[in-house]
Amino acid sequence: MNVLLIGANGQIGKHVVDLLKDSEHTVRAMVRKQEQADALETKGVEAVLANLEGSVNEIAEAVNGCDAVIFTAGSGGSTGPDKTLLVDLDGAVKSMEAAEKSGVKRYVLVSALQSNNRENWNDKIRPYYVAKHYADKMLQASSLNYTIVRPGGLLNEAGNGKVSAAEKLDRGSIPREDVARTVVAALDEENTYNRAFDLISGETPVAEALKQV
Amino acid sequence: MNVLLIGANGQIGKHVVDLLKDSEHTVRAMVRKQEQADALETKGVEAVLANLEGSVNEIAEAVNGCDAVIFTAGSGGSTGPDKTLLVDLDGAVKSMEAAEKSGVKRYVLVSALQSNNRENWNDKIRPYYVAKHYADKMLQASSLNYTIVRPGGLLNEAGNGKVSAAEKLDRGSIPREDVARTVVAALDEENTYNRAFDLISGETPVAEALKQV
Repeated sequence: MNVLLIGANGQIGKHVVDLLKDSEHTVRAMVRKQEQADALETKGVEAVLANLEGSVNEIAEAVNGCDAVIFTAGSGGSTGPDKTLLVDLDGAVKSMEAAEKSGVKRYVLVSALQSNNRENWNDKIRPYYVAKHYADKMLQASSLNYTIVRPGGLLNEAGNGKVSAAEKLDRGSIPREDVARTVVAALDEENTYNRAFDLISGETPVAEALKQV
Repeated sequence: MNVLLIGANGQIGKHVVDLLKDSEHTVRAMVRKQEQADALETKGVEAVLANLEGSVNEIAEAVNGCDAVIFTAGSGGSTGPDKTLLVDLDGAVKSMEAAEKSGVKRYVLVSALQSNNRENWNDKIRPYYVAKHYADKMLQASSLNYTIVRPGGLLNEAGNGKVSAAEKLDRGSIPREDVARTVVAALDEENTYNRAFDLISGETPVAEALKQV
């Protein structure tokens, strides 16, 4: 598949770039800044400039010609809840509208563990969960063939490719690298089509875990 | 109708209380604080304590036995975008889920002019528009019989009961009192069922404007 990766300069996104480069897929990396695009192209990765705070049309141009979107972008912990609304919610939904507009059918979204369950939301980052919750809902209400991956606490350590994936999991954590492995493996795993699931570190190789989710 | 009014202590809500008191409807005013409930009961208005930041069940108890919900609550300009996410978006949607849970069919939501049109969103309060936009979307995707009233700039001056209501209006303003008149008149105006419209001051009496919207 030709994959538009949104959030290619983020901590999960960088792993996704490397995995897609080494896969049968091709990647087009969407980034905000020319210097980010230059760095990617130096590595041999196609890059496109577009901003999630821009228009749907701007994002639709970036996605045009792709078969799938992977969304790993996030406003990050260093910005306020205004950016949470503008990027994590409205930015994500604009990219869904852009995908629909460009005729792209497949969309894989990185969300957050139990974003579907208000009772589990940590009060300290509750606004973030609200944004993820409604981005998920809008994707589920869209015409896209979606997979929503809801990872637990994100770790920087190297992954081992073994996870636990299920509709509802208790708190847990997972290396970003293993989240990246999961979203790439989900791209053409039919068992994950139009499904949402929690994801933490576990005992099962990613490909097998996705077949059982 | 028995109407649960959410946001009864707000600037639009206070007008709605007075209008419902003088109408064929009965009002139950949902407020957060005991002192607000006491003040309403002194005026002869039934009050119920519940918090939009609480659970769906808490709101469902407040709505139980009503025929309709009017939602005029807002986090207000003095709080940050965290409250915008928690109240204007998730609080509103929780009240929709509570209405569905309690078997209430009718729901009238006060939104914001052109909340459905990103191009028109004022950058200074863009996060607020994002919250209203997705609250609207979730209401439209619900099983409720909805009316979404999208007023322009809100004024404190007295209203004259004359408005302009249409699917798309340019910028404009309107006294809060006339917004309140419109939502109360919309309750049993079938022409507004499952409809959303912009609202500004105009030349047409409210009841007539709603029949033509």
